[in-house]
Amino acid sequence: QIIEAIESAFGDGPLSGRHVIVTSGPTHEPIDPVRYIANRSSGRQGAEIARALRDLGARVTFVTGPSTTPPPAGVEVVAVETALQMLGAVQGALPADAVICAAAVADWRVANAHADKLKKDPSGRIPTLEFVENPDILATISQMQEDRPRLVVGFAAETSDVLAHARAKRARKGCDWIVANDVSPETGIMGGNENAVLLITADGVEQWPRMEKSEVARRLARRIAEALAE
Amino acid sequence: QIIEAIESAFGDGPLSGRHVIVTSGPTHEPIDPVRYIANRSSGRQGAEIARALRDLGARVTFVTGPSTTPPPAGVEVVAVETALQMLGAVQGALPADAVICAAAVADWRVANAHADKLKKDPSGRIPTLEFVENPDILATISQMQEDRPRLVVGFAAETSDVLAHARAKRARKGCDWIVANDVSPETGIMGGNENAVLLITADGVEQWPRMEKSEVARRLARRIAEALAE
Repeated sequence: QIIEAIESAFGDGPLSGRHVIVTSGPTHEPIDPVRYIANRSSGRQGAEIARALRDLGARVTFVTGPSTTPPPAGVEVVAVETALQMLGAVQGALPADAVICAAAVADWRVANAHADKLKKDPSGRIPTLEFVENPDILATISQMQEDRPRLVVGFAAETSDVLAHARAKRARKGCDWIVANDVSPETGIMGGNENAVLLITADGVEQWPRMEKSEVARRLARRIAEALAE
Repeated sequence: QIIEAIESAFGDGPLSGRHVIVTSGPTHEPIDPVRYIANRSSGRQGAEIARALRDLGARVTFVTGPSTTPPPAGVEVVAVETALQMLGAVQGALPADAVICAAAVADWRVANAHADKLKKDPSGRIPTLEFVENPDILATISQMQEDRPRLVVGFAAETSDVLAHARAKRARKGCDWIVANDVSPETGIMGGNENAVLLITADGVEQWPRMEKSEVARRLARRIAEALAE
């Protein structure tokens, strides 16, 4: 096997000598000093991927938003809060052989974030939040003109038409792979221990059976090792 | 002392036989199945208050939003997510001798919450969130016409003009006491272990020194016991 050959050549696992950046967790986008917009990402899948890559010998930079899931040992943790900070952290950690964008990055941030806490207006007027689109980390890395990582993997958390949305996302972003899943509340995947994913590559679509997030991570890490070995 | 007299009469502490409802933590207001609006409340102060009231012998109903702080043992925990759910849980737990509204309840919820995940529009159009005011739990309980709890305590987390805002809040809501603090990021209070509060009552204002949140809770619980003993 290719993997075993490399493992024996480098001594430390098939990803020894490789640098992989993994983004994980939610981002928090401030509304005012006490309020923010968040998302339900637990950061479990991202943490498991970082762990699995580390276990195959990679040097892992783990760029994580605010998450209750502890990061694995033996990876370099860069803690961020907002999407802008996450992009900066990823760019600061380059160059890398692969970037795995598992974070649930906020698509928008609040344009008119307030320095003071928003107050209820006695007149009953409701505040209006204006949004501005966040930079797209996956697209930015995928479309780098120089020193692009050889493998850029995005995630697509969908609640309907998973495959169609994921295929469109892969084409639109210019990434190599998309790991797609259905995060509708009834699946129990968001915040849960299991995941059921589709892997979309240039070669087509694979449907993986529902399994522990740690096992999804190990399978994905092995596939990453194979891809980087080609 | 009054407290000790009651303690000896009831055997179990000055709040024995009393029912106190404590709300705690943030609320999460959904935007779509994966996004929500949250606030930075850690729920620590509320959990400490519930613990201190329990220690004085009260039967405590602890109505908590999503919080990383574990609830104290020996209280009845009612876990909720949104402000509407929190109001329902408080009303469902009545009657009570006192209600301590320590939760950081969202003032607004999203009127047009989406059943499917919001997508970035390829045209670059930004979604608009419309807000509707949440019911005001503190005002609702404070202004009950029948069986109003004898003591209703609100919290005011401010980032400027703390005393003026807190006094205005007490008058507006109709609650008996306001525990006010400055949660500007530079104070380190939000999410931290310490708190520095003002207690605003009908008698005036007391400035408590900065102390552990657990000590704020014990002092407040003693004051609650005294008030209910009158």
